[in-house]
Amino acid sequence: MKLLKDFKAHLQQMNNFQHAASVLYWDMQTIMPKNGAQAHIEALTQLSDHSFKLWASEKTDNFLTKLSESSNFEQLDDISKIMVTKLKEDFDRDKNIPPELVSRRTTRTNQSEQAWKTAKNADDFETMVPYFQEIIDISKEIVSYTDPGKDPYDALLNNYEKGMDAESIATIFEQLRKGTVPIIEAISTKKAPFDESKVLAKFPKLEQQKFADYLMNVIGYDLDSGVLGETEHPFTAGDAPNDVRITTHYHEKDIRPAIFSVLHEGGHAIYEQHIDKRLIGTGLNTGTSMGIHESQSRFYENIIGRNKNFWANHYDKLKECFPYYNNNISLDDFYQSINTVNPSLIRIEADELTYNMHIIVRFELEKALFDGSLAVKDLPEVWREKMKAYLGVEPKSNKDGVLQDVHWPAGLFGYFPSYTLGNIYSGQFLEQFEKEICSMDTILANNEINKVTEWLAKNIHQYGKMKTPVEIIQDTCGGSVDPKAIIKYYTNKYTKIYNL
Amino acid sequence: MKLLKDFKAHLQQMNNFQHAASVLYWDMQTIMPKNGAQAHIEALTQLSDHSFKLWASEKTDNFLTKLSESSNFEQLDDISKIMVTKLKEDFDRDKNIPPELVSRRTTRTNQSEQAWKTAKNADDFETMVPYFQEIIDISKEIVSYTDPGKDPYDALLNNYEKGMDAESIATIFEQLRKGTVPIIEAISTKKAPFDESKVLAKFPKLEQQKFADYLMNVIGYDLDSGVLGETEHPFTAGDAPNDVRITTHYHEKDIRPAIFSVLHEGGHAIYEQHIDKRLIGTGLNTGTSMGIHESQSRFYENIIGRNKNFWANHYDKLKECFPYYNNNISLDDFYQSINTVNPSLIRIEADELTYNMHIIVRFELEKALFDGSLAVKDLPEVWREKMKAYLGVEPKSNKDGVLQDVHWPAGLFGYFPSYTLGNIYSGQFLEQFEKEICSMDTILANNEINKVTEWLAKNIHQYGKMKTPVEIIQDTCGGSVDPKAIIKYYTNKYTKIYNL
Repeated sequence: MKLLKDFKAHLQQMNNFQHAASVLYWDMQTIMPKNGAQAHIEALTQLSDHSFKLWASEKTDNFLTKLSESSNFEQLDDISKIMVTKLKEDFDRDKNIPPELVSRRTTRTNQSEQAWKTAKNADDFETMVPYFQEIIDISKEIVSYTDPGKDPYDALLNNYEKGMDAESIATIFEQLRKGTVPIIEAISTKKAPFDESKVLAKFPKLEQQKFADYLMNVIGYDLDSGVLGETEHPFTAGDAPNDVRITTHYHEKDIRPAIFSVLHEGGHAIYEQHIDKRLIGTGLNTGTSMGIHESQSRFYENIIGRNKNFWANHYDKLKECFPYYNNNISLDDFYQSINTVNPSLIRIEADELTYNMHIIVRFELEKALFDGSLAVKDLPEVWREKMKAYLGVEPKSNKDGVLQDVHWPAGLFGYFPSYTLGNIYSGQFLEQFEKEICSMDTILANNEINKVTEWLAKNIHQYGKMKTPVEIIQDTCGGSVDPKAIIKYYTNKYTKIYNL
Repeated sequence: MKLLKDFKAHLQQMNNFQHAASVLYWDMQTIMPKNGAQAHIEALTQLSDHSFKLWASEKTDNFLTKLSESSNFEQLDDISKIMVTKLKEDFDRDKNIPPELVSRRTTRTNQSEQAWKTAKNADDFETMVPYFQEIIDISKEIVSYTDPGKDPYDALLNNYEKGMDAESIATIFEQLRKGTVPIIEAISTKKAPFDESKVLAKFPKLEQQKFADYLMNVIGYDLDSGVLGETEHPFTAGDAPNDVRITTHYHEKDIRPAIFSVLHEGGHAIYEQHIDKRLIGTGLNTGTSMGIHESQSRFYENIIGRNKNFWANHYDKLKECFPYYNNNISLDDFYQSINTVNPSLIRIEADELTYNMHIIVRFELEKALFDGSLAVKDLPEVWREKMKAYLGVEPKSNKDGVLQDVHWPAGLFGYFPSYTLGNIYSGQFLEQFEKEICSMDTILANNEINKVTEWLAKNIHQYGKMKTPVEIIQDTCGGSVDPKAIIKYYTNKYTKIYNL
C-alpha cells in the first residue's frame, strides 16, 4: 500500500534524526573530549527539536488519520495495525504540546543536569531548588497538553509504565514493603556471614575488561550488534536490535561493580537485541516499558548473576583473570560477598533486598512533590526522615541523600518506580519459568543460560512495544502485577544465606 | 546587526547537522558494531541531504544577497566580511545543483566504497569499472552546474585546492620529479645503511598506546579538545578547534606505523586546534585546503618526526616503552630504519622521498580519465606502465595497484595532488622558518617544538579558511608555490644518510 510505504518513509526520517541523537549522546558520555560539550549539546537540541517537529506535524496527522480509516486500516498487516494504533495514541497526546515547550524542556533539563554535577560535588542543595521547581512546572504544563484533566504524576508514570497509576503502585509497594521488612529485620540481628572488606584489593582495568568480555559471551550479548564502553555511570543505549550498546565502570579496588553492571546492562541489551527484526522502522522496536526493561536487566544481574550455581560454572575463569581471588577468596566467600544485606545510603550501591526501600522513598517523595503536599525546599529533611524510617540509616549530607541521583535533575520524574516494578516482574517471570521449564538452580548448574534467554525472548523480548507491560505479564504469567513471587524468592534466598 | 545574527543562527543549524554527521562518521569508523552499518549510513545520508537542503535554499540566498549589499556589507566586522564573501562564492556554485544529484552522489559513493572493500580483497577490478564510470559521470554532471564551461578536472582540483589547475600542477610536479629522480637513482646504487627487518618484533598494543600518549603530549596535541581512536586506516575528523579527533592503527610487529600516523594525524589536528576561536560558527573554522592540511601533517610526521635530533630527545622514552628496542636497536639504527628509501608498490607504505612518485602516477591517470584520453577499463594496464616508468616496480595484482586506495571508490577525484602539494608547501614553510627563527636541527636538539608550532599557528593555523592556500604561501613565504625548497631538503637529507 502506497500510503503505508510513504508513512514509513516519513517515520524513517524521524528515526534517522533520533539515531543520530542517540549516537551523539553515546559519544558525549564515552568518547567526547571535554571541550566538545557545547557543540554536542547544541546539535542534540537541534536534532531533538527537528525530530519533534517532524513528528508533531500536519503530515504525521494526515498519515495517521488516513491510515486509521477503516477502509485503509483493514488492509494493513498485523504489525502495521499495531503500529498505527499506538502511534495515533501517542500522536494525539503529543500534537498539542507547543514546540517551544519541548525545546525549553530539553534546554532546561540539560542545564539542570550540568548544574547538578557541580551541586552534588559541593553538597549544595540550594542551587538545585529553582531547577527542580521549574522542571516540575514544565512537566505539569506538558501534561496539561498531553493529558488534560489527568493527575500530572499519574501521567508521568504512564510515560514509563503504561497502565500504571500512583494508587496501584502505592498498594503494590506497600505489600512489597510488608513482605521485605521482616527479612531485613531478621538479617539485622545476624552477623554478616563474610567480611566484605576481604574482597577488596587492586585489580587492573585490563583484567577486569578481560573478564567483562568473558561474561558478555556467557550471557549471550551479541558483540556484532553491540559494544562495551566505559563511563562513570553505566547505561544501555542504541538502536534495537542491531546496535545496542552498554557501558560499565571499572573500580580499581573492587571487581563486583563492573561484573554486576555488565550483567545488568547486558540484560537490558539482550532484551533489545532479541526484538523482532520486522519491527525495525515502525517505532515498536524498543522495550515496551522501563519496568519490563528493568525486569530483564535485574533478571541477568540478580536472578542469574547472584545465583551460586551460576558462579560454580564461571568461578574458575574469574580466578584465572584475578590472581588475588585465586589466592584468597573461595567460591563460598565470593557468593557471600555478592549477597550481603546491609542497609545503606546510596541506591546504586544497595544490595538486592534493601534496594526496593530506596525506590519506595523516592516514589513517595515524587508523589508528594506533584500533589503539592511537599515543597521542593523541604526535600532534604523529608528524605532523611523516610530513610531513617524505612532503612534505619540517615544521610549526613545531601550528596549522600537527595542529590545522589541524576533522575530528578534530568527531569525524569515518574521513572523511579520502574526499578522496583522491574524487580517484582522479574520474580513473576522466574516463578513462571520454573513452572514451565525447570528450576533456575538446575538450569544454571547445567550452564544452560541460553534456555533462559530463549524463554525470555519468546515471551517478552521479541514483542518490543507490540504488547503493553500489562499484556506481557498477563500473557506470560496469566495474572496481573503481584509482588508475592519476588517476596517468596527473597525469603527463600536469604533464609538460606543468613540461616534465618 | 540583526540580519547577521539571524544568518548566523541559520548557519548554526547547518553546523549542528554537520556536526552530528561528523560524529556518526567517527563512530562508524571506530566504535560501531558490524550490524549497525545500515542505520548509520541511512542517518548519514539524511543528515547530509538535510544540511544541503538548508544550505542551497532560498533562505540562504536571501541572507547572502542582503548581506552582500554594500549598505549592509560595509557595517560588517572583518571576519564577517570574509565569511559573507566566501559563502556567497560557494553558494553561487552550489545553488544550481539539483538536490537529487547530491543525494545520488552520496548514495553511490557509499555503495561504491562498500563494493571496493570486497573487490580489493578479491583483487577484482572488473566490479569497480561501472562504479568508477558512474562516479566520473556524476562528478562531471555536478561540475556542469557548479562551474559551467570549466574543465571538469580543474573544477574538482579546486574543491581541494582553490587556485590550482591541472596545468600548473603538471609543471610543478614535473620540476619535482626532475629534482627527485636523480636522488632515487643515486640511492639505488647504494646498499641500505641498515637492515630494516631488525626492527620487527612483537609489540603489545598497550605498549604502543603508552608511547602514542607520550608523543601526543610531546607535539602538543591537546587531549581536552581531542581524542585518539583506533581504525584500520588512520584519519583526522572533527569540529575545529574544540573537538578534533585522530585515529591510528597498531601493527603488532612494527612500531613505526603507529608512531608516524600519530605524528601525521597529530599534525592535521594541531592545525585545526589552533584555528581562531572567533571563527566558530562562520564556516571558516577549518583548514583552508587539503594541500595546506597535508603540509602540516607532513611537517610533524617528516620534517619533525624523521629528524635525528627529535629522536635524540625522545629515544629514551621509546626504549622505556619497548624493551626490545632497549636491548637491540640503537638510536642510529632507529634513525636509519625510519629513513630508508625503497621504491615500492603501496603509497601509504612509501618512504618520504618516493612517496611523491605515487602521487604523480595518480595525478596523471585522473587527468587522463577526465579528459577522455584514458578509459576506466584500461586503468590497470596504464597504472602498471607508469609505476614501472617512475618507480621501477610493477604490481602483480590490482590489489597492490589501482585498487589500493579508497579515494576513487569514495568519489574523491582531484584529491591526490594535495598530498604532494602538501610536501612542497612543507618545504617552503621549513625554509622560511629557518630564515626567520633558526635551523630545525637546532630547534629540535633544544626540544623546542612549541616554537615551531607557535610559528605555524601564527602564519597558518589561526586563519582557518580566512586565507586561500595561495595567500598563505604568499604572506608566509613571500612567493608562489615552488618545489625548490623541498628538493633542497631531500637532497641534503639523503646525501647525508646515504653518503651520496
